[in-house]
Amino acid sequence: MQNFVFHNPTKIIFGRGTVPSIGKESAEFGNRALLVYGQNSIKKNGLHGQVVASLAQAGLTVIEHGGVCSNPLLEHVRAGIAKVREHDIQVIVAVGGGSVIDTAKAIAAGSPADCDVWNFFIGKQTLKTALPITTVLTLAATGSEMNAGTVITNEASKGKFALSHRLLYPKVSILDPEQTFTVPPSYTAYGAVDAIAHVLEFYMTTTDEDVPVQAELMEGLIRNAMQSCERCLADPCDYGGRSALMWTATLALNGLTGAGLGQTAFPMHMIEHSLSALYNVAHGAGLAVVIPGWLRWRLPQDAARIARLGRSVFNLVGGTDAERAEQTILAFRNWFSKVGSPVTLAELNIPASDTSQIAANALTLARLWRLDAYSQENIEAVLSLCQ
Amino acid sequence: MQNFVFHNPTKIIFGRGTVPSIGKESAEFGNRALLVYGQNSIKKNGLHGQVVASLAQAGLTVIEHGGVCSNPLLEHVRAGIAKVREHDIQVIVAVGGGSVIDTAKAIAAGSPADCDVWNFFIGKQTLKTALPITTVLTLAATGSEMNAGTVITNEASKGKFALSHRLLYPKVSILDPEQTFTVPPSYTAYGAVDAIAHVLEFYMTTTDEDVPVQAELMEGLIRNAMQSCERCLADPCDYGGRSALMWTATLALNGLTGAGLGQTAFPMHMIEHSLSALYNVAHGAGLAVVIPGWLRWRLPQDAARIARLGRSVFNLVGGTDAERAEQTILAFRNWFSKVGSPVTLAELNIPASDTSQIAANALTLARLWRLDAYSQENIEAVLSLCQ
Repeated sequence: MQNFVFHNPTKIIFGRGTVPSIGKESAEFGNRALLVYGQNSIKKNGLHGQVVASLAQAGLTVIEHGGVCSNPLLEHVRAGIAKVREHDIQVIVAVGGGSVIDTAKAIAAGSPADCDVWNFFIGKQTLKTALPITTVLTLAATGSEMNAGTVITNEASKGKFALSHRLLYPKVSILDPEQTFTVPPSYTAYGAVDAIAHVLEFYMTTTDEDVPVQAELMEGLIRNAMQSCERCLADPCDYGGRSALMWTATLALNGLTGAGLGQTAFPMHMIEHSLSALYNVAHGAGLAVVIPGWLRWRLPQDAARIARLGRSVFNLVGGTDAERAEQTILAFRNWFSKVGSPVTLAELNIPASDTSQIAANALTLARLWRLDAYSQENIEAVLSLCQ
Repeated sequence: MQNFVFHNPTKIIFGRGTVPSIGKESAEFGNRALLVYGQNSIKKNGLHGQVVASLAQAGLTVIEHGGVCSNPLLEHVRAGIAKVREHDIQVIVAVGGGSVIDTAKAIAAGSPADCDVWNFFIGKQTLKTALPITTVLTLAATGSEMNAGTVITNEASKGKFALSHRLLYPKVSILDPEQTFTVPPSYTAYGAVDAIAHVLEFYMTTTDEDVPVQAELMEGLIRNAMQSCERCLADPCDYGGRSALMWTATLALNGLTGAGLGQTAFPMHMIEHSLSALYNVAHGAGLAVVIPGWLRWRLPQDAARIARLGRSVFNLVGGTDAERAEQTILAFRNWFSKVGSPVTLAELNIPASDTSQIAANALTLARLWRLDAYSQENIEAVLSLCQ
């Protein structure tokens, strides 16, 4: 096990009927709130009204900042920052999925800064202070509700970049599984794929293989993501299934899985970010395409590790490591298909001829994330296995 | 899954060479520290000197409060409180295992209070404020380094009682596995048993069985406690084994395993506390005696759950649930024996004729912990299965 610091200060309030606590929890941090949310779904299902009422009851003045789209955009973040400054906002309240929470984090980071917020994403400046964030989660997927990361797309430069800083942990996140009952099957599956991808990135890129505690935790989370996803698809209002998927996705990227692994990396996300940035595909769908291709690309070096995963996730036994690893990759791909996700670039309507352009885009991120092993050629090789 | 709040603010600094950060971390909370520790072992192995030097370098004035014994005593807590008041101490620095950290927590709770500290343990008063605590852990066992609980023995009333309050989470805990290289085989094993017991209490007493995320986590932790304990016994300086055991014990009782299970209880600890209070047996040794007996007592109602545990921890398959549950209990008992722990009251030199007296002592705790299902008769029945 490698040295690590684990310090996750986010307070999780989990369960049925917990949304009305958002007002009291947010009021701990100020009395003027920016309410960040996405499209109209939370207005249709009543969640917006419930949150606004709770904030008002706790004495907060609310300025609205709706309209966050999936693969959230820098310009929309900048517009939020302008509102914060205009209205002297003290706390950012995010109601939505990962895109909304990531937008809230970027606004929280950029508002008190004397530089443009993008500078933090491209590593030109270091965050010194940020506004407090509270969240109400509506999608089990990214884990943003209990981590310090945010991913934003710069539509001008076609870059989807990430920022992580301990000032960006939400102070409080409210996770009510019932709020995910209306998530459509496709996004339920993409959320599960995202959680699986988060775990796989750590699992596959750890520099220390003597991490049995974390390995068990990660394998259990992957099994839970799959099983709970299937329950949710079979019955969208299965509270137990929605609960398990929600808590799994949160634990998949809250720092626990990676603690002690040493230097880890996010190569699958690195490549997927380019798919999202260039073609605006759903993040989970893009990951379901990249994961099998990337695993196949790594197979020669990582057969034993992939085989272990196959044994523990798919009960694969017998054969050589290489054979079991092959079966594991196929099993993941089949499962992604089974839950309704695309598994090839073609299914995403991305022509094979674009491979070079995607790789060029991904390479920018590879350099920024210090994924030095990834060249244009390597990334193209991975993409060629995603056909 | 049941509603829960999870909020664990302890900062964990884990790994080789991390001890010297205790000064800087503690200085965040004040410049006069009470250094709480146990017997002479940390002086012999140089840890005491290392900590004192680090605290001095960070500008802290240190008042010493050594002499904590296992099953730590209320009188020693009170003596610590007197020192805090006399020297206007601002931060409590605990260097040791669970007994030392628990003592530090009790001192942190009692020092600012205008009542006797025991009132918090017997539920007569509620904690309102506490001094900050930092720790350097030297034993993988209790999880006290990352939770809000403390257990203290009142030698006058022969009561071993617990207090849990969120003000008692250590601010920072330093976990260097190398500091446990010198832990003797018996205490290495008792620590693993303690971690297993913590998980088992939650696993066996959950009121909600639809908790697949937590079940996987718990089963993985039990497997890890056993495997890492065996590594440490085979080679006391196996860094990977010591790391895994240490992190397992921390995660076994940091709130994650129990989050979402609803009302859980600590019946095995309830009974063991009486063994410790009356006979001063090592906590882990007492637990290794109580666990198989208690499981056997629960077998008629909980065969399915114990059988699941057997499948997942000992790879037991085939037979009826009841048969597999029987095998599971035997497998735990055999494993406790194998790692050198007593597994019967007789091995603890406790005569069978004391059963009634032990049960009477445990009953006090059963009432305080609201374990209403436990009568004198029931507890005696469990104890009769611990022979």
